[in-house]
Amino acid sequence: MAEEQLHPLSTIPSKEDILAAHRRISPYIHRTPIISSAAMNELNGSGAQLFFKGDHLQKTGAFKARGALNAVLTHTANAQGAGFVTHSSGNHGAALAWAAKVTGQKAYIVMPSNAPQAKIDAVTSYGGSITFCEPTLEARETTALKVQEQTGAILIHPYDNYDIIAGQATATLELLQDATMELETIFVPVGGGGLLAGAALANHYFGKAKVVGCEPAEAKDAWESFNSGNWTPVKNPRTIADGLRTSLGHKNFPIIQQYVDRIELLSEEELKNAWKLVVSRTKQLVEPSAAAGVAAALRHQTIENLGVILCGGNMNLNPFE
Amino acid sequence: MAEEQLHPLSTIPSKEDILAAHRRISPYIHRTPIISSAAMNELNGSGAQLFFKGDHLQKTGAFKARGALNAVLTHTANAQGAGFVTHSSGNHGAALAWAAKVTGQKAYIVMPSNAPQAKIDAVTSYGGSITFCEPTLEARETTALKVQEQTGAILIHPYDNYDIIAGQATATLELLQDATMELETIFVPVGGGGLLAGAALANHYFGKAKVVGCEPAEAKDAWESFNSGNWTPVKNPRTIADGLRTSLGHKNFPIIQQYVDRIELLSEEELKNAWKLVVSRTKQLVEPSAAAGVAAALRHQTIENLGVILCGGNMNLNPFE
Repeated sequence: MAEEQLHPLSTIPSKEDILAAHRRISPYIHRTPIISSAAMNELNGSGAQLFFKGDHLQKTGAFKARGALNAVLTHTANAQGAGFVTHSSGNHGAALAWAAKVTGQKAYIVMPSNAPQAKIDAVTSYGGSITFCEPTLEARETTALKVQEQTGAILIHPYDNYDIIAGQATATLELLQDATMELETIFVPVGGGGLLAGAALANHYFGKAKVVGCEPAEAKDAWESFNSGNWTPVKNPRTIADGLRTSLGHKNFPIIQQYVDRIELLSEEELKNAWKLVVSRTKQLVEPSAAAGVAAALRHQTIENLGVILCGGNMNLNPFE
Repeated sequence: MAEEQLHPLSTIPSKEDILAAHRRISPYIHRTPIISSAAMNELNGSGAQLFFKGDHLQKTGAFKARGALNAVLTHTANAQGAGFVTHSSGNHGAALAWAAKVTGQKAYIVMPSNAPQAKIDAVTSYGGSITFCEPTLEARETTALKVQEQTGAILIHPYDNYDIIAGQATATLELLQDATMELETIFVPVGGGGLLAGAALANHYFGKAKVVGCEPAEAKDAWESFNSGNWTPVKNPRTIADGLRTSLGHKNFPIIQQYVDRIELLSEEELKNAWKLVVSRTKQLVEPSAAAGVAAALRHQTIENLGVILCGGNMNLNPFE
């Protein structure tokens, strides 16, 4: 494995890169289950079978553990003990802290000063050092650069990184391997595009499905970029799907352009309804971002075998307050 | 199977009665998984292993499907096509409607006029006929008797019934069979006592654990009855654990007295904390009643192998309103 660690990817992950990432991270991550639900299948009508990939049950409660660990393992030789740094208001920060801990290394996480306590607790529970900054993308990037200069830590971007993309691809690789039927369409939430680019590549190499990006209409930069052909940043995203508020990554965009069938936009009402349905019918706690894939799948009543990636399960619930 | 259906139980279920109930219902119910969680084990400290029996993943979202189906199957010959009736504000109503549907029979469910819409929807989704009444126990019992007279349907009490108890016992039977280690204590929520009496019997016949009833301090009639030796009804139960607000059944009480080790009382604060912990760490949606078993287990840091029955997952969540 030591040799693999010396070579972070500098181009779009190949078939072998994704298989190598899977071999590399498999000893540490869960092979999350494929969840099916008679009640959800009935809702979808027409005998369609839904196969949910339960990555809300992944280490750290999200698929992000896959990419973060793959990046940490591939960059370890370069880090020379100085550790890793990233900026994140969400699941990637906890995932990088976890990946660093698993491999006995340091993690520095830059978080906005208004980050929710649960996210702060997650990072500290894995031993990550937090640096708070103003809640703007600019402040986050500047602060991360400063930490990088001071510590010598290697910056691991949450999604705009080929090793991250190769790691996230393993969720779809496992879905394709473990679903008991051949999938015709796979629905994947899209924020920065790490999961979607990985899904599109994994399906290109190992599957025969159409891969559909699922994005809140209130944060439709991927849809705009995909359909115009020009990278367009997100503007004032106001969606409950907090994991999907980011702009598409520059490395992710061309992969998505080439290998994704289409992007579907979901209204906030559809996201809320899909969240309630999947949680009440399957008793699985998923985060609102995961509802994007479910909501899009529920629109397609004539397609036979649908895969949906339940990307995470980290959200605060306070029903008794 | 036809011969078994002719004989509803008139005494405390025997070892063979519980095995027969399990054979009878197994073709229709889920063998729910044993769930373990490294994060929950760590919380409990001292290397204790927690084994959760995931009956929130059971048909109808609760263990109640077990007892209701067993009762329906054993009473079917007597029903002569007239179907079944019960009164319930909770999971038993949906479970009886489901059990009747599975066996092609009618179900009449008496519900209080203030029953939550989700419970009403569950009953109607299984084809049950609802009769609404005033929200008092007296009105519920009178109305159920009236429906019984009008229709000839057989009344299936939610818990004060030996066939129900034998059915609920199968949850603990499966826990004992499927846990990978021998359990030293099993924590079971107690409301009417169907689940707890069944657990105590199953453990008496098939296990070696101590069985502990877990009850909200705000609805401590089982604790009072158990410790005084005199059946005592519940008074003004004000607990978030809506499934545990009922008084102990008369058939359940002596079984619990004989085979249960003790009853532990949980504060509302403990229930809320345990609910948040189990939901956030395992990503499994359980209802507040299930938190009673979790909360009690979390008190016991020195015991090695603990079983906890997650009794159900039916609750309304509206985080986006």
